[in-house]
Amino acid sequence: MPPEFGSETLAALVKSLSRLPGIGYKSALRLALHLLRTDNADAERISHLLAELKDKVHFCRVCGSITEAEECAICTDGSRSGDLICVVEQPQDVIVLERTGRFRGRYHVLHGVLSPVDGVGPERLNIGALEARVRAGGVRELIVATNPTVEGDATALFLARAVAPWGCTVTRLARGLPMGGALEFVDDITLARAIDRRETL
Amino acid sequence: MPPEFGSETLAALVKSLSRLPGIGYKSALRLALHLLRTDNADAERISHLLAELKDKVHFCRVCGSITEAEECAICTDGSRSGDLICVVEQPQDVIVLERTGRFRGRYHVLHGVLSPVDGVGPERLNIGALEARVRAGGVRELIVATNPTVEGDATALFLARAVAPWGCTVTRLARGLPMGGALEFVDDITLARAIDRRETL
Repeated sequence: MPPEFGSETLAALVKSLSRLPGIGYKSALRLALHLLRTDNADAERISHLLAELKDKVHFCRVCGSITEAEECAICTDGSRSGDLICVVEQPQDVIVLERTGRFRGRYHVLHGVLSPVDGVGPERLNIGALEARVRAGGVRELIVATNPTVEGDATALFLARAVAPWGCTVTRLARGLPMGGALEFVDDITLARAIDRRETL
Repeated sequence: MPPEFGSETLAALVKSLSRLPGIGYKSALRLALHLLRTDNADAERISHLLAELKDKVHFCRVCGSITEAEECAICTDGSRSGDLICVVEQPQDVIVLERTGRFRGRYHVLHGVLSPVDGVGPERLNIGALEARVRAGGVRELIVATNPTVEGDATALFLARAVAPWGCTVTRLARGLPMGGALEFVDDITLARAIDRRETL
């Protein structure tokens, strides 16, 4: 703990904050000093919410997304079709997809992606529960919405093979040019694919 | 609070975190989910430290830098010369300057900089206490180490005028090329100044 901080509490807070993803030493110091300086109850509120976090928030027993109950609001929503499951990497992906309002099926959160380089095999992901859902029947299609990366594609391929015996269709989100993008900034693979799969107007 | 979060506690935490400087909605969500996911006691530790923060940590009565006591370790250190005061904008500037090991005087933290555009006048800064220190006598030199910006320069000028009646010298940190920088990336004003104030080898 650097003595030049003038406060061990502050030094410990900066150390803890700088271990968070995307927050370096300088950002951590800036955050801590901001919280120290603000008149309002920001620090207290965050402290209180963090203390509650692990008690209250957990992952849905069925699909692995975020909930404060046993099962999440989407899994218990009878108006959503259970024969269509969208498979995502992270809980935040559910939030992003829900915001489009385009999907009325259910979700399954893998909590990661297959990555042999990082030592992440299928047993480290929430895949067993997905197989069980398909095996139990009634699932017509898995939309694998893992990220458009090598790992995301490999995970999609793995899932397609795993659920093949149950006659479940496996699809992937469409690839192509992003809305508002400029051709000159699009990578070669995306552009080549956009040409190959061009759509008739 | 967006219902798609699946948890009001998480939504409230993301909202509070995204109000912090330099943290947008997406970073806040990523941080909150990271804290939820980690097995270790990170969330608890940060919660505890934040709760302690405002009780334990405050600003030195004399110089305005960070301390858990009435006066900071530098102000109470008899081996440091009280006739030399380095004036800085923020508490983190004290930490940065201390790390150089080059300065053995004392500090004064303004907690900001004069900025008429933002409505920050001298009464909003820790300037009265600095004038009182100079007026009390024994201060030979103020090194004004505010940032090399228009506001930092204006603040230095203001302080020079304010302490002039007490015959105290006011200096500014040297300007010039930063170590390791490349000429082609240095701005015109810095380069022009570096030419004007060139040093004999």
